[in-house]
Amino acid sequence: VSERETAAIVTVGSELVEGLRVDTNTAEIAREVQRRGFRVAEATSVGDDQGELAVLLGRLAETHRLVVVTGGLGPTHDDVTRDAAAQALGREMAMDPALVDFLQPFVARHTEPRSAAQVLTQALVIDGAEVLAPANGTAPGQVLATAAGTLVLLPGPPREMREMLERALARFTPVRAAARELGVAGMPESDAQHAAQRALEGRGGIALTVLAKPGDIRVILLDEGAGEAGLDEAVAAVAAELGEACYATDGSTLADVLVREAGVARATLATAESCTGGLVSAAITDVPGASDVLLGGVVAYSNDAKVHLLAVARELITEFGAVSAEVAQAMARGARERFDADVAVATTGIAGPGGGSQEKPVGLVWFGVATRLHVSSTRRLMTGASRGAIRARSTSIALDLLLREVRGL
Amino acid sequence: VSERETAAIVTVGSELVEGLRVDTNTAEIAREVQRRGFRVAEATSVGDDQGELAVLLGRLAETHRLVVVTGGLGPTHDDVTRDAAAQALGREMAMDPALVDFLQPFVARHTEPRSAAQVLTQALVIDGAEVLAPANGTAPGQVLATAAGTLVLLPGPPREMREMLERALARFTPVRAAARELGVAGMPESDAQHAAQRALEGRGGIALTVLAKPGDIRVILLDEGAGEAGLDEAVAAVAAELGEACYATDGSTLADVLVREAGVARATLATAESCTGGLVSAAITDVPGASDVLLGGVVAYSNDAKVHLLAVARELITEFGAVSAEVAQAMARGARERFDADVAVATTGIAGPGGGSQEKPVGLVWFGVATRLHVSSTRRLMTGASRGAIRARSTSIALDLLLREVRGL
Repeated sequence: VSERETAAIVTVGSELVEGLRVDTNTAEIAREVQRRGFRVAEATSVGDDQGELAVLLGRLAETHRLVVVTGGLGPTHDDVTRDAAAQALGREMAMDPALVDFLQPFVARHTEPRSAAQVLTQALVIDGAEVLAPANGTAPGQVLATAAGTLVLLPGPPREMREMLERALARFTPVRAAARELGVAGMPESDAQHAAQRALEGRGGIALTVLAKPGDIRVILLDEGAGEAGLDEAVAAVAAELGEACYATDGSTLADVLVREAGVARATLATAESCTGGLVSAAITDVPGASDVLLGGVVAYSNDAKVHLLAVARELITEFGAVSAEVAQAMARGARERFDADVAVATTGIAGPGGGSQEKPVGLVWFGVATRLHVSSTRRLMTGASRGAIRARSTSIALDLLLREVRGL
Repeated sequence: VSERETAAIVTVGSELVEGLRVDTNTAEIAREVQRRGFRVAEATSVGDDQGELAVLLGRLAETHRLVVVTGGLGPTHDDVTRDAAAQALGREMAMDPALVDFLQPFVARHTEPRSAAQVLTQALVIDGAEVLAPANGTAPGQVLATAAGTLVLLPGPPREMREMLERALARFTPVRAAARELGVAGMPESDAQHAAQRALEGRGGIALTVLAKPGDIRVILLDEGAGEAGLDEAVAAVAAELGEACYATDGSTLADVLVREAGVARATLATAESCTGGLVSAAITDVPGASDVLLGGVVAYSNDAKVHLLAVARELITEFGAVSAEVAQAMARGARERFDADVAVATTGIAGPGGGSQEKPVGLVWFGVATRLHVSSTRRLMTGASRGAIRARSTSIALDLLLREVRGL
């Protein structure tokens, strides 16, 4: 058990416990709270039940140095957090005149008296609370002293929560360095894990976590006392051990790095996508500034599109099939020439669930890469993966192939 | 407070409370548990601390009729759930011979004696537990009788969890109809909410939830006693009130419906994307069977690409700018002709954060639609939205425009 002081996070909303919405606030709050030296002991979601929430808050406020609650601060009768917190702490509430003034324009929008009155419930402040004025919404936050420390009430919408969390936590100095995040491509998750473990041997004060999604591995180093300098050294050691599979040490995505490095190299890019259907160009254009490097792409789902838009010779498709090294190369060459780009990548494969054969099963994907000097192809077989996973992994492989070419130019 | 029996969900793993991974198991388990008549009272994530977990499980097992725990059942020393559950219930554990046999092949893969021994910890079964044999992984689940009801231990990886959850819950009969999900496009969230509320007035036994992501509104009706027939009637009433903004009443996405209806109408599609950068074609090709309807698309990020691949007259770009009704129409027409498709959609806009001007601010997007008979354009201004939100909403609008044309053909 850690010596650190503990924190608890509570997310309020029936949609969370009813399985209708996945909670992302907890992860965000956890990271910020940990940077300030707390260990998050528990994170709980509860429905809009004032009595149950009051019992929970009462227990947590007695146990943890810091309790952060999000949600349930709005104006509707489902918003029970203010009342539950007052009940848990045994305190009264009173209308805050400044908040009443602030809410007047919102009250004025309602013609129904009951709705107007409800808006003003957001001006109710628990005795002794510090008010966090709303910057993005209408619901204020509240910070309260408890038996064991501090209770923070924040609104649930992430945009409102985020901004207010920063103000609420300003009273706690960050004592841990921010987590470092390395991006890894073209290596199995277990290999990345072992490589990182080898590099961290003998280094104290660092916790390692490896997270994997299809085609995307993130190696995360958490400060457990090593500090900024220790963490920097560890990042360098892990990156060296991972070798060229490690494409970023600053949390960037593969597409971020590709756009950045292509920009520096003044290299222009193009795509020719069949099985990825636009995901490769969508990933690149997700990065602000992508227009400086990506000239464009063709989604050539039909054979006619491959022939007419990418100048793939129809005989190649007839002889080798649309999913083949020959067609992948021709697609890449066609896209490169069409857009007059420096580098183009092509994907053609069988994402399933239908369309597979014994010879060309679901999960088989051919990649083509063309530069002004050469054309090459790469084969990958992703057995047992879902359509979504095959498309996601293929996208990542295509971005990685582009990056390697840009670096080699 | 509901009269229903209560359930609690626990997810175990330090990565969850450290903010490194967003928990999706809880939502999935909650939906299944509710269908069996339980109300989920609390959902808690805890780290890999055996003592803390044992305290939590002890409290929950005394309070709730059903407690479902996921994670922490693997072979490493971080996997503390088995021990914590045994501790909470005051029971011993013993090696299960059938599980030992099952795990032998996995033991044999390890050369290090310590790793081999660790694999076998997964064969430890708590006294009185029913074993859920692993179908996808190596970790078995366990079902235990508690003072208040039942405690279910499941592995954390969603694929393993999902399959085993079904077996674990087989002892509870589904008493609620599955939730109904309507898809809505082209209407503000609050309007959708009010329309649904109007349609549900006077209907009992149904709970309403409206979830909104950029460009995607889901109206969800939960069975609170109305039953299959009552829910079906309510779905019809809500759909009628929402009008043509409601594109699906069976949980389908906009892209699902588009691919299905275009398939029935034997209509072929093409895309010409600038600001969405491939997201429209990626959404369509995410649907299995998309190859029957989508011929292909062009991501025309640069002006040259618009001219060369989509035959947009350069004078149009010079005179009206790339973000204009004229260019959107020309892009759509160009894509339709290029691919010889029945319907094509085009997007051209300013997704930001840079590139905006007073006349054409960030968030301005023009859409073009071309059929064999006519060409039209639509303007949308999404003020204050992020790059990601502008791209997501534009994608949804483009899919909606395609669907309207397919329905009108």
